[in-house]
Amino acid sequence: MITDIRELTGEIEDLLEEKDYRKLRSIMSELEPADAAEILDSVDEDSIPLLFRILPKEFAAECFVEMDSDHQEMLISAFSDNELATVIDNLFVDETVDILEEMPANVVKRVLHHADPEKRKILNQILAYPKDSAGAAMTTEFVELKAHMTADEVFKRIKRTGLDKETIYTCYVTDDRRKLIGVVTVKDFLTAQNEEATVGELMETQIISVSTTEDEATAAMMLSKYGFLALPVVDNENRLVGILTYDDAMEIIESEDTEDMEIMAGITPTDKPYLRIGIFETWWARIPWLLILMFSATFTSKILQHFEDALAAETALIAFIPMLMGTGGNAGGQVSVTIIRGLSLGEIYMRDILRVLWKELRVAILCGVTLAVMNFGKMLLVDDVTVTIAAIVSVTVVIAVVIAKLVGGILPILVKRIGLDPAVMASPFITTIVDALTTLIYFKIASMIIGL
Amino acid sequence: MITDIRELTGEIEDLLEEKDYRKLRSIMSELEPADAAEILDSVDEDSIPLLFRILPKEFAAECFVEMDSDHQEMLISAFSDNELATVIDNLFVDETVDILEEMPANVVKRVLHHADPEKRKILNQILAYPKDSAGAAMTTEFVELKAHMTADEVFKRIKRTGLDKETIYTCYVTDDRRKLIGVVTVKDFLTAQNEEATVGELMETQIISVSTTEDEATAAMMLSKYGFLALPVVDNENRLVGILTYDDAMEIIESEDTEDMEIMAGITPTDKPYLRIGIFETWWARIPWLLILMFSATFTSKILQHFEDALAAETALIAFIPMLMGTGGNAGGQVSVTIIRGLSLGEIYMRDILRVLWKELRVAILCGVTLAVMNFGKMLLVDDVTVTIAAIVSVTVVIAVVIAKLVGGILPILVKRIGLDPAVMASPFITTIVDALTTLIYFKIASMIIGL
Repeated sequence: MITDIRELTGEIEDLLEEKDYRKLRSIMSELEPADAAEILDSVDEDSIPLLFRILPKEFAAECFVEMDSDHQEMLISAFSDNELATVIDNLFVDETVDILEEMPANVVKRVLHHADPEKRKILNQILAYPKDSAGAAMTTEFVELKAHMTADEVFKRIKRTGLDKETIYTCYVTDDRRKLIGVVTVKDFLTAQNEEATVGELMETQIISVSTTEDEATAAMMLSKYGFLALPVVDNENRLVGILTYDDAMEIIESEDTEDMEIMAGITPTDKPYLRIGIFETWWARIPWLLILMFSATFTSKILQHFEDALAAETALIAFIPMLMGTGGNAGGQVSVTIIRGLSLGEIYMRDILRVLWKELRVAILCGVTLAVMNFGKMLLVDDVTVTIAAIVSVTVVIAVVIAKLVGGILPILVKRIGLDPAVMASPFITTIVDALTTLIYFKIASMIIGL
Repeated sequence: MITDIRELTGEIEDLLEEKDYRKLRSIMSELEPADAAEILDSVDEDSIPLLFRILPKEFAAECFVEMDSDHQEMLISAFSDNELATVIDNLFVDETVDILEEMPANVVKRVLHHADPEKRKILNQILAYPKDSAGAAMTTEFVELKAHMTADEVFKRIKRTGLDKETIYTCYVTDDRRKLIGVVTVKDFLTAQNEEATVGELMETQIISVSTTEDEATAAMMLSKYGFLALPVVDNENRLVGILTYDDAMEIIESEDTEDMEIMAGITPTDKPYLRIGIFETWWARIPWLLILMFSATFTSKILQHFEDALAAETALIAFIPMLMGTGGNAGGQVSVTIIRGLSLGEIYMRDILRVLWKELRVAILCGVTLAVMNFGKMLLVDDVTVTIAAIVSVTVVIAVVIAKLVGGILPILVKRIGLDPAVMASPFITTIVDALTTLIYFKIASMIIGL
C-alpha cells in the first residue's frame, strides 16, 4: 500500500545495470510522480538522464517538478532543445516558476527561450512578482467563466480546456474587464435542483481573495483556515490574475514551518533535505549564528570577570550558575516559541503585547515560585549548602524566571514590529540575553545578602 | 477582501446591545463559518448562545465545528434536546468525532443519545479507533461507486447524495465485498472523450491508501506528498471504511507542527490558542519540564562543586563557563532540531543513524575549529587573558561542539527507536546534557594543561 522507496531504488539500480529498459519504464510509470522523483533523486547521478528519458513524456514532466533543484538543473543542461521544450510544455505555469526561481540566470534564459511565446509572456509576468508573494506562488491555469453561462456550456468548456487546468472544481466568474465577481463550483452544478440555472444564479458573490503582493504564507494560511480548494489572487484593481491551489498551499505551510523551526534553532534555512546538503553548505548555514551567539556571551563573561574576586571568596555560588542560566533560558524559550508560533498562526497580534505581558507576568510568578520552593528544598537536602546560599539561589530563580518570561514574550513581538522574522527571537537569543541578566541579578542579590 | 475579525467583533457586540437581531443574522451569515466562529468565540460568554441561535441552522452547525471546545461544551449544555439534534444532524461524522473527542463523558453520552441511530452507530465505530489514528480522523461521507456505472448514473448519484458528502470530486470504487478496487474523479468524467465510458474503464487501479490504525500525521503527510484531495482509509482486509480529506489533513499537519514546536521548547502541547488558555493551565503545561531540567542541572553543579578549589585558584576560568555551555547548547540544538524535523518529514529514517553521525562529525569539526580560532583571537584581544587560558577555552570549544553535534544528532533517532516522540530531544534536553559534558571536559583539559 505504502511504497518503500529505498527498497524500490535498489531494484531500479539493478535493472539499470541489467539495462532492462522496458521493465524500468513499466515499474517507474506505475508509481506516483512524487515517488518516482524520489527514486530519480536517489540513483547514481550519471544514471538520472537515462532513467528520465525512459519515462513517458507527460509523466516525466510530473516527476521533474518534484525533483531536487540540483538535479533539475543538471537535467536541463543535459536536455536537447527539443527535450527541454517538451518538458516545459507539460509543466503548469506555477511549477515552471517554482523551478526557475532556484535556477541560475543562464538556465532561466534557456528555459524561457524554449517556452512557447504565450507561456513565456506569463512566465515573465509571474517571475516579476516578489519571491514568496502570492503572485509568485499562484498558477494562471484556472477555469474562468461568465455569468450568463449554463451548466451545459460550463461542462463543455471544462471538457475542452479542463485537462490543462490545475483545478476544474472551483471556477471563477469575471466580468468584461476581468474583474472577479463570483465563485462557483462543479459541485454547485452537479447538485443544483434547477438544471437550467446559470453561473450567475449559482455563484457565490461574497468572495475571499488575496492580492498578488500578499505574503504566500499568509495566503496559504487563509486557504487552510477556510478549507478552500483554491484561493483567487487579484491585482490592485480586483482583476483575477491567478489562483493558489490547496496542494501548493500545503507545501508552502510545511516549508514555512520547517523554516521557522530552523531559524528558531539558529540555522539559516535551506530548501533541501538534510541528507542531500553538503558538509560545507551545512557549516555555512550554521556557523554565523554560532559565532554571533558566542560573541554575545561576552557580556556574561564580563559580568563574571567583574565578580571574580567575590566568587573566589564564596566559591559555593559558582556551582549554581549553570542551573540558574539553564532555568532562565528554558523559561524564556517556552514563551518565545509560543509567541512566535502564535504570531505566525495569526492567533496573536502586535496589539496584544500588553495582554501577553500581563499573562506572562502571572505565569512567571507561578512558575518561579514553584521552582524556587522545590530548589530550596533540594539544595538543603542534596547539595549540602548553607541556608543563605540556598536562599540566594532560590530568590534568583524567581527573578530570573520572571525576567526570562517577559523578555521571551516581548522580544518576538517587537522584532516583528520592526519588520524582521520573529523566529530569530527564539531560545538561542533569548538564552544569551537571559544568561547575562540572570548572572547580574545573582550577584546583586548575593552582594545584598552576604555583602560580597 | 480580508475580514478584520476584531473590528467586526466590536460591531457585533454593539448590535447585540442594541438587540438588532435581524442585522446580526444578516452580517453573521454572510461570513465564512471560520470567521463567524472566531467572533462567537470572542464575544462575551453570556451572549454566545443568543448569537448562535440567531444563525441559520446549517450555517450555525458549520460555525459550531470551528469554535473552541470550551465554548462547544457550553453550548451543548445550553441546547435543548431539539437544538442539539439539529446541530448534530448538520455535522459531518468526522467533525462530530473531533468535537466529541474533546468532551467529557456525560456530554458525549448526551450527543450520541440525540444522534439518529445510523449516525450513532458510525460515531461509536469511529470513536473506538485510537486517538490520532487515521481511523479517528477520517470521514465516512464519501461517494462510493460500482465499476459498471456510467457517467450519467454517477452524476445522478452525486445529485442525490452529494450535498451530504465531504467531497464529491474523488470517488471510490468498491467490489461486492466493499473492497477498494479503484479511484475515479469527477474530472475524469468531465474530460472523458468517450461519454459512454464506465467507472471501471476510467478508474485508476493503482491505489494509495492507509490503514485505519496508521498515525493521522503520517496519513496527512502522505496526502500532502501526493497532492491528493482525499486519501482512502481501509481496514485490515482492504475494505474501504473512510477517507481523509485535504482540509482535515492540513489541520492535522499544522497542529502537529505546533505540537512539535511546543515539545521542542519544553511545553506540554495544548490545542487551544495562546490567549485563551488560563494562567494555571499555562503554568501546568510548562512547570514539569522546567522542574525536570532544573533538577537535571544538578549534574553540572556537582561537577563544578568537585572543582571548586581549583576554580578558586584559577578564577579566570569561571568567566568562560557560560560561553562554553551556550556554544555547546546552540551547536547541539541546531542538529537536534534538524534531525527531529527530518524524521517527522520522512526525510531521515532510523537506519540513517550512521550517515547522520558521519556528516555531523565533519560539520562539527568545521564549526568547532572556526569557533575556536575566532574565540582564541577574541580572548587575547578583548578579554585580556593569558595565552594558556585562551588555549584551554578554545580547545574545549572544539571538543564541546563535536560532542554536542553528535549527541544532538543521535539522541532524537534513539528516542524515536524506543517509541517516544523525538521532539523531546530538542534544545532544552540537549543543552542540559551538553552543559554537564562541556564542564567536565573544560576542567579535564585545564587540569592537563595547568595541573589544577
